[in-house]
Amino acid sequence: MKKYVYSFDEGNKEMKSILGGKGANLAEMSKIGLPVPLGFTITTQACNKYYEDGKKIDSALREMIFENLEKLEEETNKKLGDLNNPLLVSVRSGAIISMPGMMDTILNLGLNDETADGLGKLTQNPRFAYDSYRRFIQMFGDVVLGIRKYKFDNILESVKEENGLSDDTELSANNLQDIVVKYKELVKNETRKEFPQDPREQLTMAVTAVFESWNNARAIVYRNINEIPHHLGTAVNIQSMVFGNMGESSGTGVAFTRNPSTGEKEIFGEFLINAQGEDVVAGIRTPKAIEELKNIMPDIYDEFIEITKVLERHYRDMQDIEFTIEKGKLYLLQTRTGKRTAKAAVNIGVDMAHEGLIDREAALMRIDPEQIDQLLHPTFKPSELKKAKIISKGLPASPGAATGRVYFTSEDVVEASKRGEKTILVRIETSPEDIEGMVNSEGILTSKGGMTSHAAVVARGMGKCCVAGCGELKLDQHSKLFKVNDIVIKEGEYISLDGNTGTVYEGTIETQSVEMVGNFGKIMEWTDGIRKLKVRTNADTPRDSKIAVRFGAEGIGLCRTEHMFFKDNRILAVREMILAKTTEERKKALDKLLPFQKEDFIGIFEAMGSRPVTIRLLDPPLHEFLPHKDDDIKSLARELDIDFNKLKETVEDLKEFNPMLGHRGCRLAITYPEIYEMQVRAIFSAAIYIVEKKGIDVKPEIMIPLISHEKELYIIKKLVNETAEEVMREKNTQLDYKVGTMIEIPRAALTADSIAKEAEFFSFGTNDLTQMTFGFSRDDAGKFINEYRKKEIFEKDPFERLDELGVGKLMEIAIKLGKETRSDIKLGICGEHGGDPQSIDFCHRMGLEYVSCSPFRVPIARLAAAQAVIRNR
Amino acid sequence: MKKYVYSFDEGNKEMKSILGGKGANLAEMSKIGLPVPLGFTITTQACNKYYEDGKKIDSALREMIFENLEKLEEETNKKLGDLNNPLLVSVRSGAIISMPGMMDTILNLGLNDETADGLGKLTQNPRFAYDSYRRFIQMFGDVVLGIRKYKFDNILESVKEENGLSDDTELSANNLQDIVVKYKELVKNETRKEFPQDPREQLTMAVTAVFESWNNARAIVYRNINEIPHHLGTAVNIQSMVFGNMGESSGTGVAFTRNPSTGEKEIFGEFLINAQGEDVVAGIRTPKAIEELKNIMPDIYDEFIEITKVLERHYRDMQDIEFTIEKGKLYLLQTRTGKRTAKAAVNIGVDMAHEGLIDREAALMRIDPEQIDQLLHPTFKPSELKKAKIISKGLPASPGAATGRVYFTSEDVVEASKRGEKTILVRIETSPEDIEGMVNSEGILTSKGGMTSHAAVVARGMGKCCVAGCGELKLDQHSKLFKVNDIVIKEGEYISLDGNTGTVYEGTIETQSVEMVGNFGKIMEWTDGIRKLKVRTNADTPRDSKIAVRFGAEGIGLCRTEHMFFKDNRILAVREMILAKTTEERKKALDKLLPFQKEDFIGIFEAMGSRPVTIRLLDPPLHEFLPHKDDDIKSLARELDIDFNKLKETVEDLKEFNPMLGHRGCRLAITYPEIYEMQVRAIFSAAIYIVEKKGIDVKPEIMIPLISHEKELYIIKKLVNETAEEVMREKNTQLDYKVGTMIEIPRAALTADSIAKEAEFFSFGTNDLTQMTFGFSRDDAGKFINEYRKKEIFEKDPFERLDELGVGKLMEIAIKLGKETRSDIKLGICGEHGGDPQSIDFCHRMGLEYVSCSPFRVPIARLAAAQAVIRNR
Repeated sequence: MKKYVYSFDEGNKEMKSILGGKGANLAEMSKIGLPVPLGFTITTQACNKYYEDGKKIDSALREMIFENLEKLEEETNKKLGDLNNPLLVSVRSGAIISMPGMMDTILNLGLNDETADGLGKLTQNPRFAYDSYRRFIQMFGDVVLGIRKYKFDNILESVKEENGLSDDTELSANNLQDIVVKYKELVKNETRKEFPQDPREQLTMAVTAVFESWNNARAIVYRNINEIPHHLGTAVNIQSMVFGNMGESSGTGVAFTRNPSTGEKEIFGEFLINAQGEDVVAGIRTPKAIEELKNIMPDIYDEFIEITKVLERHYRDMQDIEFTIEKGKLYLLQTRTGKRTAKAAVNIGVDMAHEGLIDREAALMRIDPEQIDQLLHPTFKPSELKKAKIISKGLPASPGAATGRVYFTSEDVVEASKRGEKTILVRIETSPEDIEGMVNSEGILTSKGGMTSHAAVVARGMGKCCVAGCGELKLDQHSKLFKVNDIVIKEGEYISLDGNTGTVYEGTIETQSVEMVGNFGKIMEWTDGIRKLKVRTNADTPRDSKIAVRFGAEGIGLCRTEHMFFKDNRILAVREMILAKTTEERKKALDKLLPFQKEDFIGIFEAMGSRPVTIRLLDPPLHEFLPHKDDDIKSLARELDIDFNKLKETVEDLKEFNPMLGHRGCRLAITYPEIYEMQVRAIFSAAIYIVEKKGIDVKPEIMIPLISHEKELYIIKKLVNETAEEVMREKNTQLDYKVGTMIEIPRAALTADSIAKEAEFFSFGTNDLTQMTFGFSRDDAGKFINEYRKKEIFEKDPFERLDELGVGKLMEIAIKLGKETRSDIKLGICGEHGGDPQSIDFCHRMGLEYVSCSPFRVPIARLAAAQAVIRNR
Repeated sequence: MKKYVYSFDEGNKEMKSILGGKGANLAEMSKIGLPVPLGFTITTQACNKYYEDGKKIDSALREMIFENLEKLEEETNKKLGDLNNPLLVSVRSGAIISMPGMMDTILNLGLNDETADGLGKLTQNPRFAYDSYRRFIQMFGDVVLGIRKYKFDNILESVKEENGLSDDTELSANNLQDIVVKYKELVKNETRKEFPQDPREQLTMAVTAVFESWNNARAIVYRNINEIPHHLGTAVNIQSMVFGNMGESSGTGVAFTRNPSTGEKEIFGEFLINAQGEDVVAGIRTPKAIEELKNIMPDIYDEFIEITKVLERHYRDMQDIEFTIEKGKLYLLQTRTGKRTAKAAVNIGVDMAHEGLIDREAALMRIDPEQIDQLLHPTFKPSELKKAKIISKGLPASPGAATGRVYFTSEDVVEASKRGEKTILVRIETSPEDIEGMVNSEGILTSKGGMTSHAAVVARGMGKCCVAGCGELKLDQHSKLFKVNDIVIKEGEYISLDGNTGTVYEGTIETQSVEMVGNFGKIMEWTDGIRKLKVRTNADTPRDSKIAVRFGAEGIGLCRTEHMFFKDNRILAVREMILAKTTEERKKALDKLLPFQKEDFIGIFEAMGSRPVTIRLLDPPLHEFLPHKDDDIKSLARELDIDFNKLKETVEDLKEFNPMLGHRGCRLAITYPEIYEMQVRAIFSAAIYIVEKKGIDVKPEIMIPLISHEKELYIIKKLVNETAEEVMREKNTQLDYKVGTMIEIPRAALTADSIAKEAEFFSFGTNDLTQMTFGFSRDDAGKFINEYRKKEIFEKDPFERLDELGVGKLMEIAIKLGKETRSDIKLGICGEHGGDPQSIDFCHRMGLEYVSCSPFRVPIARLAAAQAVIRNR
């Protein structure tokens, strides 16, 4: 027979997976001799069995519960339902991973008409007894019987009104008895049954209700959001009640052993006199700061402070503690690791390491890499924020805070920023043509598109604030304004965006950079001593490169060259190149682009110094650079002095059924080698310029995209080498460089042994690799991916977290085969997964040399890479 | 020192890879004592070395050539350049794989002003000597010196004219001497050098020219078409000349040991008296049938017949033989395996097996599976064809011959065929909406689209004649006519299509079914005794199913259900279903479709009898079923009584960036389970109906498309099982069935162990698997695939031949993993590769249970499957 129930003295803190967090810690506190009210825990396995058995508590479990109850009765010398000395218990949920407030709790169980009377006599405090009874009926009614809470509140309020009372504490014993009668009537009316008077029946019903609350709607949503598996189940803790509501020498409170928002080493908490736990939570009365307890009950305060020290030392982490004082005696009801802000996490980690409480590695492991993001972006001043007027809310697509004047086109943003204005770019959704506007604005607001829309992805890449998919926004491009209900914002007017919450505000709000305290630098330094993975960045501009270097980037893993093509007036030359009818014409147009590209690379090389820079040659299909609307085609036709109809035909001709699977990447260079030739020429001219003018040892790595066959790479590598040698001969110099490839097509991974013959490095392009491996495109998956999440087909969007079983397996194959051919092949990743902590862990296990991510994720990646080492040791 | 030159007595027929086909067979004939003029062969390796050395004949090779020449001089007792007894030689190319007429040949080498004179004296036949000399100058001038042949012809003609002669044989020795003088003048004018008089220099130049001819333009094209590797190189055969032009007792000819077009056992050939080989080829004189030789030179005829028998017995195959008679003596100049039609291949194979010359397996191995196609489709009567007027020529997209009245829309074709007319559907290109028209027409003609366009693929699938991409055709849909230059064909007028050649004819032409002689049936029977792979068919209609069964299909491997959706007026219900706003509405529309679908499956089950039928549930994205042009949207809006703008918006909304990677396949059933539910209901209702009414043991296999994750299959399999059980419960019966999946997404292959938990069978959908593995779509690859072929990146279009290294590796992984979970998992392939012989060989090696292909490829697949067994034994 499996053991489904553990008394507190049988458990310890390592047993979380069966006792839940709360149960394990109650047992642990008992074990180390802290004052914990007696009790026992029904395991999570019992909860799972309840569901397996078709939502039934079987007789074996029931028996174990009552055996433990009897033991509890013996030890407390009270009896459930005893008229003279009744045992009252609390029944609380306790999940393995904390889900605060999501599941249910019942206090004061064991009370009925008779035991309430007995309790009044025993305590000589009938007011307390009926206060407890009415609380119990209300909680039980709500949680177990499903009666909406406001109906109880209405009764309570009406009695207070009848008696001219304003505060609950003013209710007399008689008032409370009256309320109890009315509550029981409510229960009878709602359930067509009397309120259950048998305490054992109450207990069984309450345990069932807690089991059921594991699958209530809000718990399911919470687990989905927090990626908590649905099969874990909850434990149930049955504990003898202690009462904070037994008068002025009683009370209840919560406290953190350190400040959870700053990390400062100080007790941080609050308490209420003469109250039960839910009063603190409900906010009916305003609690007092914990320090005041010193004045009211100095001994209790000292005892409590001593206990907090014991607990922090014992758990070696900041604790979040619940306590109750019953008639001058202190009881602990819960302790758990306290939640904290990123800032607090960093500070507590460093402090505890300095205090010798933990070592550096433990300090690193306690910081959630995702949280660090908070430390890197500006925020609104909280004082200002309170006064701000909210216009609407969209998706928090890219963190940060931004204030600026509204403009509706990329061109207008660019113009305004030339005038020195701070701007916000507002679009239905962005496209590659908006890049310049995005770069020059403070933030981006779109009315359509999700968390992985163009605007969101590019903004995150730039570390720029973005609110996406703000559906309420009605854009009127023509009149240059937008409306939200009856609010109208015209071009040039100020708005403010909070990328952390997705909120859009009217007018300006002052922002603040979160101070980067010295401890953050220390944490980053510690990661560098531990991690095996190098961290590079994906950056296409000198500006991004500089930010990334400041954040610790050790090179560029992906420098896309297509964004450069949209800049300024070079797009015209790009279009001439695309529309060229002969190789000659195409070369002429490319010659115009060459000096621009050279300039781009000079800026980037200079920013990166002697760090390696991996440049990906042109990747997107050419039609992305052409206009598609008739008006735009017309104006281009005029500009190039060609026939509109012919141009339109060419534009139509270049359209593709599946652009993702079309004429792009290295395929462009197989058909038009002169494009890559120009790019390589620009790269090497720039590199040699920097070497000669600045004496910097530039390390270009030329990366060929979309390789599926070794022969593609063979042909293009030859072109690259020949062009590079030509430039070096012209400049009479030599330069070390590498030629490698993206592995982003399944076939490349599967034939990596052949491809490694040519490639000096592999960089896993896991965005495309994920698309091809799953066979769905990021742009189209929106139509079904929600249903997939809902039906739990994907635990996590595979574009956010690397799919280890599928995409990861391809990577594993590629690594194995690649090394067979070239044992020292350089391996990296440059898909968006390169900035996802869990995916970074996978990359570490696969033995990659580096990950590459957007500049603002570099610190996150550094931490995640260090954690991966520790975790997998 | 590597041996680069072999005397004929040093080689044999197994040495083809270094001696080339011609050289190896000359050596072999020498070896078995047949009369072959003496000579030697310069190896293919020498040719490759020539290219490696930068197109130079190095001194070592030169030395070996002249050593062998001296040996030849000794054995023939003649000397190159000897004034009195000159040795003359032929210099011929000889590739490993025959490339008839693609490379160069020079005869009579060794002649110059002096040896010509000497030869005239020696033979007492100056006419012969100067005839040979002028032939030599012309050939050498053309092949070695690059002087256009017509310039020599002009001289020859003018001399004939001057002397009033009409036939070359009438030219006197003096005339020929005159011609020689003029030829040499031409050479001097063209090359600014004298015609080379040194025979050794002539020889070196000739060998060089033959080496060079390996890479002439037409040879490269020929190799590309015939998939002959470009690195093989050619051998060069130097052989002492024998002369068919030494008078009436001399001659030359070619013969096959059996009839190459029917396979009949009879010598089939022709000859010319007093001529050299090129006269036969050039067609200046009309050759005589070989039988006439019996009258002219009975002894020679008998000797030749005897030799043909020896050669056929020796090579155990039909031979194609070249011979020359010099002054009453027979010499053999070449023997090789004779090319033949499919019909001949079948008949010769069966006959030789019966004769005991070869065994059945050898007979099977000699038939090219691709060729069999010729035997399955109707052709035009040759007599009729001669009279027919050609309108234009397009691509031979799907074989067969068809005559019918022209119609320009699917609807008009359907109407006309209801009236009993035979029709040809003419479209710019076809789309899924044209399916009904394609089914009801005799043939399809399109003005755009290539060999893998919609029209081509679907027509081949149906075994229906199709000419695609006929670019000259100008369609005027409005006036219901098409023009080609000044020919105008109006609706209702007759045209005829030849799908084997791509030719379009005016008017009607009578067709004939090629008689399926008994030998073909025998060959098919033999394959069945050998092959391990079962052969199923891809068929969606009772008609196709019946054809396939007639061709020997053992089941359906892929029954697509989407074509059914376009039929008749059910498309309206389909559109209602797509446009439904609620599940209720959707179910209502699906209910309308249910009886149609049931009917479809009844027809197919009945046609297939107790053979297994694999039905793939709905696969394409829903927008494929909606109209896209404004006019069509308007008329649909009217039909469904909804607002045009709203409908248009929905149509736009459903559009996808990458439909191939979009909301289709099983993803449809994850979001709209009711679609598959309807289909499963239809399948099981139909199956039970057939079982009960016809007593046939129906074996439905439900196939889920586009699975990428085990959980998709888990959810859908559950739906299928529940629906099936519901239907069976309603009908109070039981039915055996299987549920399996396509493996067409890389991730499915990579996680096949998990997927096999649910799938009872895997069917490799190698069309999509190829697209995803390579990362390019079939529809878009047209823009670059030619360049890929040209640059030899792909030897073969991976959509035609399975890419073993990439796609094949995924299959291998899937098979291994699938069997780990379910050792008896059923494995098949249903992509178009299932009908490609080389891909079938791979499927055999992978241990699949069956291949599935279009009905008309079933016999091809049966043969290829048998050959795979023999080849891999």
